[in-house]
Amino acid sequence: MAYELYYWPGIQGRGEFIRLALEEAGADYIDTARKPESEGDGATAITAFLEREDIACPPFAPPFLRDGSIVVGQTANILLYLGPRLGLAPSDEVKRLWVHQIQLTIADVVGEAHDTHHPISGELYYEDQKAEAMRRAGHFRQDRIPKYFAWFERILARNPIDSGLLTGATVTYADLSLFQLVDGLLYAFPRRMRQVLPEVPRIAALHHTIAQRPRIRAYLASNRRTPFNEQGIFRHYPELDG
Amino acid sequence: MAYELYYWPGIQGRGEFIRLALEEAGADYIDTARKPESEGDGATAITAFLEREDIACPPFAPPFLRDGSIVVGQTANILLYLGPRLGLAPSDEVKRLWVHQIQLTIADVVGEAHDTHHPISGELYYEDQKAEAMRRAGHFRQDRIPKYFAWFERILARNPIDSGLLTGATVTYADLSLFQLVDGLLYAFPRRMRQVLPEVPRIAALHHTIAQRPRIRAYLASNRRTPFNEQGIFRHYPELDG
Repeated sequence: MAYELYYWPGIQGRGEFIRLALEEAGADYIDTARKPESEGDGATAITAFLEREDIACPPFAPPFLRDGSIVVGQTANILLYLGPRLGLAPSDEVKRLWVHQIQLTIADVVGEAHDTHHPISGELYYEDQKAEAMRRAGHFRQDRIPKYFAWFERILARNPIDSGLLTGATVTYADLSLFQLVDGLLYAFPRRMRQVLPEVPRIAALHHTIAQRPRIRAYLASNRRTPFNEQGIFRHYPELDG
Repeated sequence: MAYELYYWPGIQGRGEFIRLALEEAGADYIDTARKPESEGDGATAITAFLEREDIACPPFAPPFLRDGSIVVGQTANILLYLGPRLGLAPSDEVKRLWVHQIQLTIADVVGEAHDTHHPISGELYYEDQKAEAMRRAGHFRQDRIPKYFAWFERILARNPIDSGLLTGATVTYADLSLFQLVDGLLYAFPRRMRQVLPEVPRIAALHHTIAQRPRIRAYLASNRRTPFNEQGIFRHYPELDG
C-alpha cells in the first residue's frame, strides 16, 4: 500500500524533507494535497483529517504520513519511522539516534530560517514584521549560519569512513535533508551563501553529490518538485540577505 | 554505570526535561556541570567536551548525555534513548513514536517560549530586543498557547484508557515534559495561565498529578531542582505577560 503524505500544496515547506526521502527510495507514495480538489483532495483533505474526532493520535500540524492505519506526525519523527523502511537509516540503534540527532539539528536551523521572515508571528504578513525580520535575519546570517555550518562540516570530516556523507557509507535521510537545507538557504540568502559555502567544502560537495543522484536528479527536474517561492519556509527577500 | 548529564549549571533550561525523567525513574546519574569547578567540572566540562576532537559524534549543543562510550544529544533524542531504559516509554514502535511526536511538539512550544524574550538573537540581551519581545509575547499568549494547549487537552481526552496521562496507562517522559512545560509557563506567564488553565482541565490535572508523584515531589523539594530564573528558557518579565 502506498504511503500517503499530507502537506500543504504550493510550497516545499517541511513536507519536502519527507518527499526527498520517498523519492530517493523510489517509494510508492501519494502526495495527497496535490491531487486535484475535484477528486476531493487538496488542502481540504488535510484540515478535514485533522478535524476528525475518531483519530486517537491526531498530529498537531502537517506534515503527517499515513501508512495504512498508522499516522505519524512531526517531520523528524516521520523520517525516523521511514528511515529503516526506506533503507535510509542504519539498523544499529545508536547510529540511528545519531542520524536522528543530526535531523533534529537541521530542524532547528529550518525553524530559525522560517523566523527570519516571521520573527513576531506566523499569523501576521511579512510586511507587518519586516523591521524585526531585518534585524533577526542579520543575526541569522552572521551568527547562526556559520555556527551551524561549522558543525555540519565538522561531523562530515569526522565520519570515520570519510564517504563524504554525514554518517557511514550510504545515504541517510539526514544527507537528503542537509541537501535541502543548503538548497533552501541558497535560494533565500544567495549573497550570504556565496560567502559561506567556500568555507565549508564538504557541505558544498554533499549538496552537489545528492543533487546528482539519479532519482533525486529526476525528481528535481520533474513537476513534482515545487519551485521555491515566497509562501514557503525559505523565502528570497533581498533585503534580508544583507 | 551512572548516566552523565551535561547541561549548563544555574538554569533548568532544556536539561530539566532530562532530569525529570532520570528522577522519576530513580536512575543513577551525575549532573556533571553542577559538580564544583574545583573538581574540574562545572560549565567548563561542557565546553571542554564539545571541543574534543576525538568525538566522532559531537553534539551541537547541550544538553547531551553520556552512557559509557555512547553520547546522545538533542533533548527529545536523549529522551527517545532513555525512555525504554527508564521504563518511561512504550515498547511498541508505533506507540513509542507517538510519545516522541508529542515530545517534539512540546519542544516546539519550548522554542517559542524562549523566543518570546529573545525574538531577534540569543546573542543579544533581553533589554536590547525588548520592543520585539513585547510584540512576539503578545502573539504567543493570545494565539500559540491556546492552540498548543487545545491539542494537548484533545489528546489527553482521546487516550482510550482515559488514564489522565497522554498515552497508555503508565507515565511516559512526555507526561513529565508536559508537566514541566506547564510549570514553566506558570512561572513566566502567571496572569495568562490563570485564564488558560481552567479551560483545559485535563492538562491542569496532569500537572497536579505529576507534581504529586513521590520521586518528583521529593525532587522538586530538593536543592537539585534549580529555581526558575531570568537566565533560563521560562523567564518572568511582567511586561511580557500582558
